[in-house]
Amino acid sequence: MGNRFVFGGLFRIKDHLLKRMKKKKAVVLLSGGMDSAVTLYMARQDYQCHALIFDYGQKAVRETGCARKVAQMTGSPFYVLRISFPWKGSALLDALVDVPAGAVSGGGNIPSTYVPARNIVFLSFGVSFAEAIDAEALFIGAHQLDFSNYPDCRTPFFESFQETVRQGTKKGVEGRGVRIVAPIIDRTKKEIIEAGLGLGVAFEHTWSCYKGGALPCGACESCMFRAAAFAEAGIPDPLLK
Amino acid sequence: MGNRFVFGGLFRIKDHLLKRMKKKKAVVLLSGGMDSAVTLYMARQDYQCHALIFDYGQKAVRETGCARKVAQMTGSPFYVLRISFPWKGSALLDALVDVPAGAVSGGGNIPSTYVPARNIVFLSFGVSFAEAIDAEALFIGAHQLDFSNYPDCRTPFFESFQETVRQGTKKGVEGRGVRIVAPIIDRTKKEIIEAGLGLGVAFEHTWSCYKGGALPCGACESCMFRAAAFAEAGIPDPLLK
Repeated sequence: MGNRFVFGGLFRIKDHLLKRMKKKKAVVLLSGGMDSAVTLYMARQDYQCHALIFDYGQKAVRETGCARKVAQMTGSPFYVLRISFPWKGSALLDALVDVPAGAVSGGGNIPSTYVPARNIVFLSFGVSFAEAIDAEALFIGAHQLDFSNYPDCRTPFFESFQETVRQGTKKGVEGRGVRIVAPIIDRTKKEIIEAGLGLGVAFEHTWSCYKGGALPCGACESCMFRAAAFAEAGIPDPLLK
Repeated sequence: MGNRFVFGGLFRIKDHLLKRMKKKKAVVLLSGGMDSAVTLYMARQDYQCHALIFDYGQKAVRETGCARKVAQMTGSPFYVLRISFPWKGSALLDALVDVPAGAVSGGGNIPSTYVPARNIVFLSFGVSFAEAIDAEALFIGAHQLDFSNYPDCRTPFFESFQETVRQGTKKGVEGRGVRIVAPIIDRTKKEIIEAGLGLGVAFEHTWSCYKGGALPCGACESCMFRAAAFAEAGIPDPLLK
C-alpha cells in the first residue's frame, strides 16, 4: 500500500514533469510593471516561460527588481539584459528632462516619456532570444487603450513587426517564425487588474511609477493610470499597503 | 588686396560651412568591413553622417577599431554601442563553436555564422539614434547577392522593417519616419570594391575576416569572398600589403 502510494506519487511527479516538458517555450518581456506581470501569468498557462528583463538606465530602478521577483515567483528563468540608449530624447532616460507630472498623452500627442523605437529594440532582442532557445512565441504586455499615443503599443505596429520577423529571421523564412503575442492589447487597465487578480498576480511586486523613489510619486501619468485602475477595480493597490 | 583675399577666403569657408550645415543628417551603421565603409562614403555625398558602431562581443575584435578609423577619416562623429546577445546560437559569438572554414552559405542554407535577428537589433538601435538626433535616413551596407542566405540582408526584409518604422516610431506616424537606405543591396562584391575605389575608400582600414587574429585567416567564407572580389576587380587587397 505504501509502495503503491509512492508509485502513485512518482507517477504524478512524472506526469507533471512530462506536462512541463511537453509545454512549448515562450519568451516574455518583463518590465517590472503590472501589465507585463499579468502577461507572464497569462503566458505560463500554455507555455514554459523565459523572462527577458531590460536594464536600460531607466530612472525607475525598482522596475528590474520587481521584474526579477515576479519571474522568480512564477519559477521562470530570466535574463537581465543591460542595454543603453546613449542618445538623448526621452524623459525616462535623460536626467536633464523632468518626468512630467500628470496626464501627458492626451489629445493625440506623443508624450516626452517616449523613448525612440524602444519597443522595436526590445522586441528585436526578444526575437533573437526566442529564436536562440527555440521558443515559439514572444509575449509583450503592451496595451493600446489607455496609452494609445505610444506608436509602438498599437496593433498595426505589432502586425508589421510580425512581418519583419517573418522576413528577417531564419525561422521566419522557414515558415515557423517567432509569434508575437500581445494578449492584453485591447484591455483596459481595470480589466488587466481583474485578469491579474484571477491569475494570482502579486501586484505588490509590480512597479508603475516612472521615477526612481522608494515609493511611487503618485503624480506621474503612470502612477495616475494605476491609481485610477485600482479605484475602478474597487480594490486597494497592494503596493501602497 | 590682402584684405580682399582674406575676405574671399572667409566667404569660401562660409560657403563650405553653410553647405555642410544645410546637409541633412544620416546615421550609418558601420561594422568595420568594406561594405559599410563604402556605404558611408556613398552616404556622405548627400548627408552629414553619424556612424553607429556595435561592439557585441564578436570574435573579430579588429572590426570596431577599423570602423572607428573609417569614421574618423571621413570626419563623421561616431558612437560605439556595447550590446550583447548572451544567448548561444552563432559561430560569430559563441567561443564553443568554431567559425567554419570555406563556403557555408551555398545551396540555400543559412550559415552557422547567422546571429538570430542581428540586423533587426542593429536597425532598431539605428532608428532610435536617428530619431533622437533628427536624422532623416539610416544607411546599412547589406547586400543580397553574395550573401543571399542571410534572411536579414534581403530587400523584402528591409521593406518590412521600413513599414515597422512607419508604424512604430513617433516620426513614422507623423509621416516623416527615418528612411532605411541600403545603397549596395544589389551590387556584387566586385562592384562594391570598384565603387569604393572611385570614392577613395581606404580599404586597408576595413576588416572582413570572421576571426580575431592579427591578420585575416584567409579561410573563412568572408575572407574567401573578399579575396575573390579583389581578384575580380584586378587589384591587390591593400589590407594584405
